[in-house]
Amino acid sequence: MTARALQLDLVPLTLECGAALPALHVAGWEWGPPEGPVVVVIHALTGDARVDEWWLGMFGAGKALDPTTHRIICLNNLGSCYGTTGPADADFPRRRAVVGDRPNPQTKGLPCLPEDDLPAPITPWDQARAWLLALDALGIDHVALLTGGSLGGMICLCLAALAPERFRAVVPIATDVRATPWVIGWNHIGRQAVLADPVNGLAIARQLAHMTYRANPGLEARQGRQTTGADSEWPLQPYRMQTYLQHHGHKLKERFHPGAYLSQLDAMDHHDIHRRPTADPHESWNSNGAWGTSRLPPLTVVGIDTDQLFPPEPLRALAQLVPGSTYSELASEHGHDGFLIESEPLNKILARALNQESS
Amino acid sequence: MTARALQLDLVPLTLECGAALPALHVAGWEWGPPEGPVVVVIHALTGDARVDEWWLGMFGAGKALDPTTHRIICLNNLGSCYGTTGPADADFPRRRAVVGDRPNPQTKGLPCLPEDDLPAPITPWDQARAWLLALDALGIDHVALLTGGSLGGMICLCLAALAPERFRAVVPIATDVRATPWVIGWNHIGRQAVLADPVNGLAIARQLAHMTYRANPGLEARQGRQTTGADSEWPLQPYRMQTYLQHHGHKLKERFHPGAYLSQLDAMDHHDIHRRPTADPHESWNSNGAWGTSRLPPLTVVGIDTDQLFPPEPLRALAQLVPGSTYSELASEHGHDGFLIESEPLNKILARALNQESS
Repeated sequence: MTARALQLDLVPLTLECGAALPALHVAGWEWGPPEGPVVVVIHALTGDARVDEWWLGMFGAGKALDPTTHRIICLNNLGSCYGTTGPADADFPRRRAVVGDRPNPQTKGLPCLPEDDLPAPITPWDQARAWLLALDALGIDHVALLTGGSLGGMICLCLAALAPERFRAVVPIATDVRATPWVIGWNHIGRQAVLADPVNGLAIARQLAHMTYRANPGLEARQGRQTTGADSEWPLQPYRMQTYLQHHGHKLKERFHPGAYLSQLDAMDHHDIHRRPTADPHESWNSNGAWGTSRLPPLTVVGIDTDQLFPPEPLRALAQLVPGSTYSELASEHGHDGFLIESEPLNKILARALNQESS
Repeated sequence: MTARALQLDLVPLTLECGAALPALHVAGWEWGPPEGPVVVVIHALTGDARVDEWWLGMFGAGKALDPTTHRIICLNNLGSCYGTTGPADADFPRRRAVVGDRPNPQTKGLPCLPEDDLPAPITPWDQARAWLLALDALGIDHVALLTGGSLGGMICLCLAALAPERFRAVVPIATDVRATPWVIGWNHIGRQAVLADPVNGLAIARQLAHMTYRANPGLEARQGRQTTGADSEWPLQPYRMQTYLQHHGHKLKERFHPGAYLSQLDAMDHHDIHRRPTADPHESWNSNGAWGTSRLPPLTVVGIDTDQLFPPEPLRALAQLVPGSTYSELASEHGHDGFLIESEPLNKILARALNQESS
């Protein structure tokens, strides 16, 4: 199935932090009949718009995301580095433009990226607004299925809360209604690694993130306590677990922009569906406790039993809170990354959500 | 209760990796009547021999570790930096002395500590052997209670397997029979942060470790999503979770030696109670699958329900495997660090183990 490139110049946003984007360009891909029912997929932290590649098991004729019957759209998220406006652009707003010359407590005492290189913080509300502008530009009022996992699921929830009337089925997967201190903590350690050394630190941050995406049972099955060399060289050869992590770290540092990584970490930290999105950073962020959840349409919430980053409990509670919602739990030995791996049950859940809602 | 300093010059060990220590000095503290029943406490990764400070809730008159009735001994572990022989000593064996000039796959492509500074790897068997030599030097043949948590629990298990006849009650807490790939993975990311920058990287490694020692419920209760500044400055002020982590990272980098940290990570990675300790690195490490467990005396195993680093299951299985053992589980919202925090139930478990065994 041929992918069609999308390149959209949109009305520039003012970010929630108060900084105005000088321009808003969104890049992405679409597949399938232009007149078919629309499926919107939102990618995760370091993902990209090639959903046909990273969700291979869910994409294709006869699969839940079927480009022979549906118009499938995936766009690169705001603040990322695959064609959409983000910190890799020289004119992307910088943190200093918002806070001025006040010392940055996040970087105090650290060898650091030049202060001028730190991006102005973005939020999933900002990212959802960029998505909404893109749907407007594409003339799409009705979406048959909106889905995404992890940070993609956070943006899904925000987008559904911004324009609930546009989405028939909404399937947030392995995500949360807000970033817990647990998530903020992990993100902050990755952030410090990147600030200390944008290139090698990005590799360390990715390895840390990879651990939070996995669970021990899957690692035992695939890596165990094996070393990469002969047993006779123990303990002087690295464990397979060590070279496995380094491989993942190396791959990300070759393909991702450190500033965009910081930007996506910011977005995840600032996720809180309960508060109303604002363009005024002086507005309290705790004052609108039910704004988001009160607006959400019925959801098909999906959790993963072994997910250590976004455990199932808050997702189960979300499904109970939003009228007409259901909760399904994937069984996986792989933790959070189960949303990329457990194709069979996920195909069924997505197909059911799509068919029930469009029938 | 006055602490008495212990400074012991012991017969130098040959480490399991094949490197010979030029000298073995062990430093520690003891409390209580010299003729009283002996309690041995083994500290964790970055702990020290002042058990009266880090286990305050368990130590004192009327507590499980009672210096008015028992002789309580805690020594700084081999490879640490509080007086016992370790990588901070100029003549501690270096990795290069064992592997020669072969490239080190652990440090490939990383800015790094000078290769000559990397310590020769140690194991909990090495650390337990140093403990055994110290007990010999002190003339202690019979120990009423042996206990420790985390890496201290790993060393406990090794020590009990080396000389099961010497220990009446053995209480390993929040630990494992072997380092899982999960543990090896976390350690490897901390290691890379230290290798990249021994001082600031140590602060990052400590923050990462701190996360693995905690659990979200406790973090929600104490840090939440609060920022350190006024709400009106969101999202430009750090979250309390961020400054909390940085505080812990800063504290460790002020007090701990980076080489000693690498050494303790090595020890934890190489922990495997199943294999027989060896002084020959060319001996296969998988060939003696039941050596350790077959030698263990009855154990009082303690797990923590929210421990994400050393989850309860393998500890429960250990208690089932070793005849005469029992398993107790602490309920804690704090994860692995529950072994330092949940004084009340832990006091009861330790006191019961001590009294049952000495009656």
